[in-house]
Amino acid sequence: MNLILLHPDEWIDDTHAVLRDPRRLRHLADVHRAVVGDCLTVGALGGRMGRGELLSLNDTEAQFRVTLDREPPAPLPVHLLLALPRPRMLARTLEHVSALGVKRVTLMHTRRVEKSYWQSPELKPEKMRQHLLLGLEQARDTRLPEITLETRFKPFVEDRLPALLEDQRGLLAHPGLARECPRAISDPTLLAIGPEGGFVDYEVDRFLELGFEGIHLGERILRVETAVTALLARLF
Amino acid sequence: MNLILLHPDEWIDDTHAVLRDPRRLRHLADVHRAVVGDCLTVGALGGRMGRGELLSLNDTEAQFRVTLDREPPAPLPVHLLLALPRPRMLARTLEHVSALGVKRVTLMHTRRVEKSYWQSPELKPEKMRQHLLLGLEQARDTRLPEITLETRFKPFVEDRLPALLEDQRGLLAHPGLARECPRAISDPTLLAIGPEGGFVDYEVDRFLELGFEGIHLGERILRVETAVTALLARLF
Repeated sequence: MNLILLHPDEWIDDTHAVLRDPRRLRHLADVHRAVVGDCLTVGALGGRMGRGELLSLNDTEAQFRVTLDREPPAPLPVHLLLALPRPRMLARTLEHVSALGVKRVTLMHTRRVEKSYWQSPELKPEKMRQHLLLGLEQARDTRLPEITLETRFKPFVEDRLPALLEDQRGLLAHPGLARECPRAISDPTLLAIGPEGGFVDYEVDRFLELGFEGIHLGERILRVETAVTALLARLF
Repeated sequence: MNLILLHPDEWIDDTHAVLRDPRRLRHLADVHRAVVGDCLTVGALGGRMGRGELLSLNDTEAQFRVTLDREPPAPLPVHLLLALPRPRMLARTLEHVSALGVKRVTLMHTRRVEKSYWQSPELKPEKMRQHLLLGLEQARDTRLPEITLETRFKPFVEDRLPALLEDQRGLLAHPGLARECPRAISDPTLLAIGPEGGFVDYEVDRFLELGFEGIHLGERILRVETAVTALLARLF
């Protein structure tokens, strides 16, 4: 927790906030070993960042005097289109992408996504939000990514994907496709990444027909969470 | 498991091998749904890769006829110098770096590494080897990374690090250092990455004095496992 993220219901007035949730109070006490008078990095969820002077701390609450004086880090210009990973990997991947600065994620169904994954408790909005918040607290960012679920491949690709691709550079990451992953681009990008086992040929063809460029990361086959981080780090 | 990695004791003769360990037998049956006659990607641990025709499969063993006809993917030209992460993160990080093609890792002590981490069962050679093997099986590689432990910072940095740095480009990744992480380099590189909480100033100074270049990945503070993957993907 490199940033104390203040939620709307934690503000007392414009310059004072109070934390009451046990996870963050414990972290303040045990990891930061914070004492009254300490200045910590804080941010308003969805807003600006700055510092918070700790005015009081006990087992049930921590009060801060807050000065917000700067913007959070720039987001990555990417909309991530990710085949739904298995639940444990989803949790970690959401944390990574939130920390890396992705602000739009669409989790989609593809042939090799197990149908049971869509029933996982990890997909509950509150669960996903918790992982995204951990990523923001880690990276020092305040703006939550927006997550959309697309549980059927064909209607998504035929009816909604063309509009998402307007004014975006579509990149389809898949082992064996033609082009090496480009580096240091700044185009607004729609980046599609397949499930463990990859996209099937039919799916690859649908993306390429719509104008996605096929890219690869080399001969090594990476796990989804490794591939997502590697692609984002290389692209932007 | 995208590669069946054949260990020295699993060869019957030059072209035949037999698997008996339950993990891989289960994977063959449940994930690959392999049947006699199937051809699978195999590799000799530390050696070449090719294909294996499944000659027999039952609950206790799988026999293959093996043809090895190509080299494993090129390694990354990097020696990773990593402050020992906490045990759970160490396990995942070893899997990532093995999959990404790192062949030399030194795990070192620094001020912000908790001393108790050095007692973790995750540091047992057999445990680390297991994670490294999973990375190779994932990425389709055959050559195990070599791991060295350096439990004391000062003797390591003073007595052994200068020799490791000979003919290598030293890069020290730390938030706030001068230079943006370079991209697409091909120099043999010694890459130092700190613990959660970072290197302390004294440690940064020691590395810079020895000739390491200080680099950063931007304002975001990443978890060690995310930072390692992001740095390797951007550098190489």
